[in-house]
Amino acid sequence: MSGHVLALCGGVGGAKLAFGLAQALGPDELTIVVNTGDDFTHLGLHVSPDIDTVAYTLAGLSDRERGWGLAGESWQFMDQLKRLGGEAWFNLGDRDLAMHVERTRRLAAGESLSQVTAALASALGIAHPIVPMSDEPVRTIVRTPDGELAFQRYFVGEQCRPVVTAIRFDGAAAAQPSAGFRAALERPDLAAVIVCPSNPYLSIDPILAAPGVRAALSAIGAPVVAVSPIVGGRAIKGPTAKLMTELGATPGVTAVVNHYRGLLGGLVVDEADREEAEALTVLGLPTLVTGAVMVSDEDRMRLARETLAFAHGLPPQRLRLAS
Amino acid sequence: MSGHVLALCGGVGGAKLAFGLAQALGPDELTIVVNTGDDFTHLGLHVSPDIDTVAYTLAGLSDRERGWGLAGESWQFMDQLKRLGGEAWFNLGDRDLAMHVERTRRLAAGESLSQVTAALASALGIAHPIVPMSDEPVRTIVRTPDGELAFQRYFVGEQCRPVVTAIRFDGAAAAQPSAGFRAALERPDLAAVIVCPSNPYLSIDPILAAPGVRAALSAIGAPVVAVSPIVGGRAIKGPTAKLMTELGATPGVTAVVNHYRGLLGGLVVDEADREEAEALTVLGLPTLVTGAVMVSDEDRMRLARETLAFAHGLPPQRLRLAS
Repeated sequence: MSGHVLALCGGVGGAKLAFGLAQALGPDELTIVVNTGDDFTHLGLHVSPDIDTVAYTLAGLSDRERGWGLAGESWQFMDQLKRLGGEAWFNLGDRDLAMHVERTRRLAAGESLSQVTAALASALGIAHPIVPMSDEPVRTIVRTPDGELAFQRYFVGEQCRPVVTAIRFDGAAAAQPSAGFRAALERPDLAAVIVCPSNPYLSIDPILAAPGVRAALSAIGAPVVAVSPIVGGRAIKGPTAKLMTELGATPGVTAVVNHYRGLLGGLVVDEADREEAEALTVLGLPTLVTGAVMVSDEDRMRLARETLAFAHGLPPQRLRLAS
Repeated sequence: MSGHVLALCGGVGGAKLAFGLAQALGPDELTIVVNTGDDFTHLGLHVSPDIDTVAYTLAGLSDRERGWGLAGESWQFMDQLKRLGGEAWFNLGDRDLAMHVERTRRLAAGESLSQVTAALASALGIAHPIVPMSDEPVRTIVRTPDGELAFQRYFVGEQCRPVVTAIRFDGAAAAQPSAGFRAALERPDLAAVIVCPSNPYLSIDPILAAPGVRAALSAIGAPVVAVSPIVGGRAIKGPTAKLMTELGATPGVTAVVNHYRGLLGGLVVDEADREEAEALTVLGLPTLVTGAVMVSDEDRMRLARETLAFAHGLPPQRLRLAS
């Protein structure tokens, strides 16, 4: 397609579509803005899980069986850390650790997270820009009946078991969108914004929470197209469906649309959700029904191509559901 | 022997004798004070090379072929760090890295280096106290014709190639001996101080540079016995002989004695240095001539036992060379 594409992306699911988009578009045609609400300081190191997942996926280095981290990873560091009585609830592979150590070193030397991310992605051979949503800290906190939990404590430490009653993004009100994010939003040739199939509550909402982002997305002419992370009422990966239930919604693509209401100009859903999609179309939201589960690289590239073509065919003035 | 023994120790050579002393003495009978002038912050991590060498050696975990670090070490972290364009001149093994990360985390949490060292050594199963010479930073700096070099830049980065014209210990004047070091010096049952066969200039001098240490060693009744790191005019390991030449001395056990003049009550040297030792005895310094090259664990234990017996037989009021 002609024009620039802005992708909003969280971790594993979103990274798969980002990989497909990066195959379909040149480095100058795509900006991938990544959630940093999952970032945290662990063992004194700045860990950016979603940025690393996107980088490893785009570089073709991610482990597909485990679903996170690097392929061919080793665990000697963790093994010794356990022996030393260190904090062992969050696994850091030996090779992965280099990212966190080098990121932490560069941040301490005064580089911004955007600069660090660009340097590390470039070192991994990635040509497309991976941009943190903000250079300032935003920290996702979930509220549970037993109190608040920092995101990684909930996601990794507690394996998403606690019931979530609310989610907040600590620091979001003061965290300006990064320069790369703002520049992409302001491009006159912006042709589409793709909301990748990431968790709407935990991965995309932090991106939308930065000051001015929702307003900018409402003001641009280009369509905002979400690829549903829910297929047949279930999340492909992670706690999206569980969260929907806990927050009072019925897991399904309609819940995705309601969550993004006022923003979407189009929706991509899986064949499993054809019926629900047709109802949404009747309500005025253009939908693309296709295979939305990405297993192979071919799946990723096909879904990216189809999503781009769908976005390209949408009217310049977006139709929106009433908010 | 009856009474407490204080060992002053640097890295590899000293650690071998410390291992032997730890086999000969119970945990309550030995305090091993270790040089921290080699410590440095690398990649944001607090690295204590001599403490780790002593800990790994006492725990039986050190790599004997390579001569430093852990046996069975892997290097995935370094490999990835190089790929990311990080600083790769100082090798950090995957398992070794756990020590630095956990040390740095504990220091940042407010623990003293003594507390951290005790906790990590205990986790490695070490019963004997390993005590940093000071909890405050001392940094060894070597002066060369091309300017000053931080110790690890000289030792690892430049492989000791530059000519050294002077050595200073940044921070030493303000760095109080650690509580464990002071307590050992003040023990009424202190029976001997063993200066391990470490580099006198780079490993032992920083320990002696802390305020009050030389005066305390001069005031105690127990003999100070050095085990020579020089055998037959050569260093068993490292730049001791090269440094002696550069600093104007003739490499040999006499240079060791001159370096420690005013402190020693006895000297242990290798068979190769019998002649020089006899001359020193005539001058009033008791010497023990034995096999001082430690290859096997048996060597370490034998040399430790012989050194302790030698120290035990020295007169309570030490004979000293005129300073």
